[in-house]
Amino acid sequence: MKRGLFITVEGGEGVGKTTHMETLSKVFGAAGKKVCLTREPGGSPVAESIRKILLSHDNNISCDGMAELLLMFAARADHLESVISPALEVGDWVVCDRFTDATYAYQGGGRGLDPQKILTLEHLVQGELQPDWTLLLDAPVETGLARVNKRGDPDRFELEERAFFERVRKTYLERAKMFPKRIRVVDATGCIEEVSKAVVEFANSLVRTSNGR
Amino acid sequence: MKRGLFITVEGGEGVGKTTHMETLSKVFGAAGKKVCLTREPGGSPVAESIRKILLSHDNNISCDGMAELLLMFAARADHLESVISPALEVGDWVVCDRFTDATYAYQGGGRGLDPQKILTLEHLVQGELQPDWTLLLDAPVETGLARVNKRGDPDRFELEERAFFERVRKTYLERAKMFPKRIRVVDATGCIEEVSKAVVEFANSLVRTSNGR
Repeated sequence: MKRGLFITVEGGEGVGKTTHMETLSKVFGAAGKKVCLTREPGGSPVAESIRKILLSHDNNISCDGMAELLLMFAARADHLESVISPALEVGDWVVCDRFTDATYAYQGGGRGLDPQKILTLEHLVQGELQPDWTLLLDAPVETGLARVNKRGDPDRFELEERAFFERVRKTYLERAKMFPKRIRVVDATGCIEEVSKAVVEFANSLVRTSNGR
Repeated sequence: MKRGLFITVEGGEGVGKTTHMETLSKVFGAAGKKVCLTREPGGSPVAESIRKILLSHDNNISCDGMAELLLMFAARADHLESVISPALEVGDWVVCDRFTDATYAYQGGGRGLDPQKILTLEHLVQGELQPDWTLLLDAPVETGLARVNKRGDPDRFELEERAFFERVRKTYLERAKMFPKRIRVVDATGCIEEVSKAVVEFANSLVRTSNGR
């Protein structure tokens, strides 16, 4: 049994992750791949319980700094063990809404936590495991936030200030430069149809590479 | 302002931690110390939310391995930042029901997690911070479990098997040998009055040392 592909979808607020996760899923499904769509933080019962703490609006419950970072990796450890790794082992293609690049972007870039500490936890929890491919949807912060504001009911991360999201975006783009073979940046500024076209091309290229290998 | 003392109380199930936490508190209070009684996992709103996940009976929620370990340290990071460190800074004496020795005993000894991983997280979360003193209440596993069984309504850790608790006790005693200056072992096999006498002596010795320093 050939191991499945592990694909993560990253990006700031309002870049269209949900829509383009579906696009990826359709292309992979049409190519005969069994797709496991999942998300972080969350994706398993324990991790979803942790997600509730992480996204809580309650100021008494909200945490930041090291506690937030450890909760993110606790959720990830359970999600990997109970969902992602088993799916990859039976050959499914896993498409995950956010993964460790988001931790570098939000907790590292956004909150200013030492990336070296994130790296320590990444090694501890993931060992050598990395996504095979990452789709980074990139758009200017004001474009993304304008889309999010239309939705209403923002969560704790969405309530951060503009400068926070600028640091998040900058960190994502730096990581794309650090890992050019893994991370594909797609400009998500345009309308859904335009961005979808680029996402479909990316998805088709993964199917072709996979069938050829 | 002289920094407060950080005292942890450790031991397996049914060794009388709750009772002897109160004994310590009374002796310190009588000596004019302001005492902060707290517990792990928990002790702050975020950490108590994490405690609910850790002690849950729900099999869909229960987690072990790396996720459990990271949750323990996430709770600890928040507890340290929001309760323990501020109390020590204003000169309070903090008496904490379980701390990192319990992680080595339960997750390391009990569940068999690599102590090196616990050490990595200990450094990441605590830096150089260690308890000034640790009271380890030690009793044979059957003595402790017989006391716990009288209480009813056991939590997820209390439902573990006998061999698990033997490994927990062994690890606690090994740590007492590794840190003889910090960890004071008190035999908790006898009746409350006997054990209390030893605990009061220990508490008085801390007060004397503190007044003399």
